Amino acid sequence: MADGLPADSRQRFSQFVLQLQDEVCQALEALDGRGKFHEDSWEREEGGGGRSRVLREGAVFEQGGVNFSEVWGKELPPSILKQRPEAAGHQFYATGTSLVLHPRNPYIPTIHLNYRYFEAGPVWWFGGGADLTPYYPFAEDAAHFHREHKQACDQHHPDYYPVFKRWCDEYFYLKHRQETRGIGGIFLDYQDGQGELYRGPYPDSAAANYSRELGPVAPRSWEQLFAFIQDCGRAFLRAYLPIAEARKDMPWGDRERNFQLYRRGRYVEFNLVYDRGTIFGLQTNGRTESILMSLPPLVRWEYCYHPAANTPEAELYERFLKPQDWANYVAKG
Amino acid sequence: MADGLPADSRQRFSQFVLQLQDEVCQALEALDGRGKFHEDSWEREEGGGGRSRVLREGAVFEQGGVNFSEVWGKELPPSILKQRPEAAGHQFYATGTSLVLHPRNPYIPTIHLNYRYFEAGPVWWFGGGADLTPYYPFAEDAAHFHREHKQACDQHHPDYYPVFKRWCDEYFYLKHRQETRGIGGIFLDYQDGQGELYRGPYPDSAAANYSRELGPVAPRSWEQLFAFIQDCGRAFLRAYLPIAEARKDMPWGDRERNFQLYRRGRYVEFNLVYDRGTIFGLQTNGRTESILMSLPPLVRWEYCYHPAANTPEAELYERFLKPQDWANYVAKG
Repeated sequence: MADGLPADSRQRFSQFVLQLQDEVCQALEALDGRGKFHEDSWEREEGGGGRSRVLREGAVFEQGGVNFSEVWGKELPPSILKQRPEAAGHQFYATGTSLVLHPRNPYIPTIHLNYRYFEAGPVWWFGGGADLTPYYPFAEDAAHFHREHKQACDQHHPDYYPVFKRWCDEYFYLKHRQETRGIGGIFLDYQDGQGELYRGPYPDSAAANYSRELGPVAPRSWEQLFAFIQDCGRAFLRAYLPIAEARKDMPWGDRERNFQLYRRGRYVEFNLVYDRGTIFGLQTNGRTESILMSLPPLVRWEYCYHPAANTPEAELYERFLKPQDWANYVAKG
Repeated sequence: MADGLPADSRQRFSQFVLQLQDEVCQALEALDGRGKFHEDSWEREEGGGGRSRVLREGAVFEQGGVNFSEVWGKELPPSILKQRPEAAGHQFYATGTSLVLHPRNPYIPTIHLNYRYFEAGPVWWFGGGADLTPYYPFAEDAAHFHREHKQACDQHHPDYYPVFKRWCDEYFYLKHRQETRGIGGIFLDYQDGQGELYRGPYPDSAAANYSRELGPVAPRSWEQLFAFIQDCGRAFLRAYLPIAEARKDMPWGDRERNFQLYRRGRYVEFNLVYDRGTIFGLQTNGRTESILMSLPPLVRWEYCYHPAANTPEAELYERFLKPQDWANYVAKG
């Protein structure tokens, strides 16, 4: 067993994410007022299983899915072994929770959260994050979402937020559209308490450069990282609920609905073309319905759509779909 | 220049696909009666460009795209070099046409066609095919579509259809759903006139085994392969139009529409997760709007949908979404 790894590491992380799943589902049902989560438990042939919860046709949420899974198997897929060659030839254990909510009102952003934990032979690591995808965006919502996550990070290390915020902007990027997926949040992966914080595949990215400039962080124990991940997970409801509350009664019509359905197409493009969580799930014979629960219930594509100048739709592209320092946003006026 | 390659090979192939684009668009407009194709010409920074044509909100076709592109650049992307290592370090030229039609009436199948030609250093090859994706299927339509393509193939070599039909079933397969995309057709790639017909990445697949059993085919010249590809391309209208004609006035309602929108989700999943044409386009900085023109205008996802027993929807899954010998189908009764 690797140095400093508690004997009950797996149970402790899976207990945490199961509890987070409970807390989050309860709070979302309360906000929605009508929709209820329905639960499916499932088993995976090669080992492990999960507990998927889906809310459909709610008052606030058109669809929401909150997954828990705990899987093990002979060896991690090549996409992960490339980043973690020490895990090659070893059995793996992976557990985590992931959540995607597709609200009905186009003024409420779509939200994604995922926290996960891996063990494989000599190595273990934490990963995950949360990011917000608005359709008709509000700068104050973006600032609130980032500040809550910054606060959770800052309690543990001053370098966490600036690196993980940049990593999120880098990760949730649609290269073929030259757009970020939304206004970001935080994203981290392969966190084992050693060395530089950035462990992504792009050594020349803004996140990588920033992390390199900061230099390696002092070693942190499993306990320290687990405490950090718990605080990030617990920041979710504080970060998202006030936004959904503030926007849920704003009136909207066909124009807003059409734009929301169109922009949901980007969510599909990101999840199917780029998302490592989706690819990991499909490569490891995960439960397809739970993996693709993140896809929106209704989506539109339109050839060569461009928003008209000086519209809220154009503002989304010009201001919100590129990395911004939202935590330090100050309203003008 | 490789042996037997005519000096005007590129022009001849691109002329053929441009003409095919014209013929097909004209015939589809005539069938639709209302919709017209609108053309965009575009250039690609690294070299080349294309001519995209899109029909929207037609009477028969909700959306249809017929692309022509001709691109060149420094080197082919790694996904192709893996199959064609001789092309490494060489400039490439690639031209082709691709078409996807999303009909309004759920009784008309979606159709895809693509024929393409590559040159890179010492190597050249042809690829492409056509495949049919019904929602509410008819066995006689599936049989007709396959027979027209078999006939085009059989004029050139008796082994073509049986290998390329199996290859199509293998290629248009959604592993995470354990479903074929539709009822298949033909698919071929890396055809340079040498050796075994199957050149796909799965040496243990039905297509590979069948091709190996047959053994290598006698060498065929560029001219012979070009004539074959032309006949396949020209088979398209004969194969598809009678099906669309026969089904376009069948009445349908919400139930059929909902199922069509749901099944269109599989089209999106295939194109974004598996399709090599899409991945090639996105990897080579192709024109995103033209590449993703294949995505349906409106799509639905539904968590854990299963068709009720003894319904036409169930029949699609049970009978049509697995490989069948459609060319030899005989109606019972």
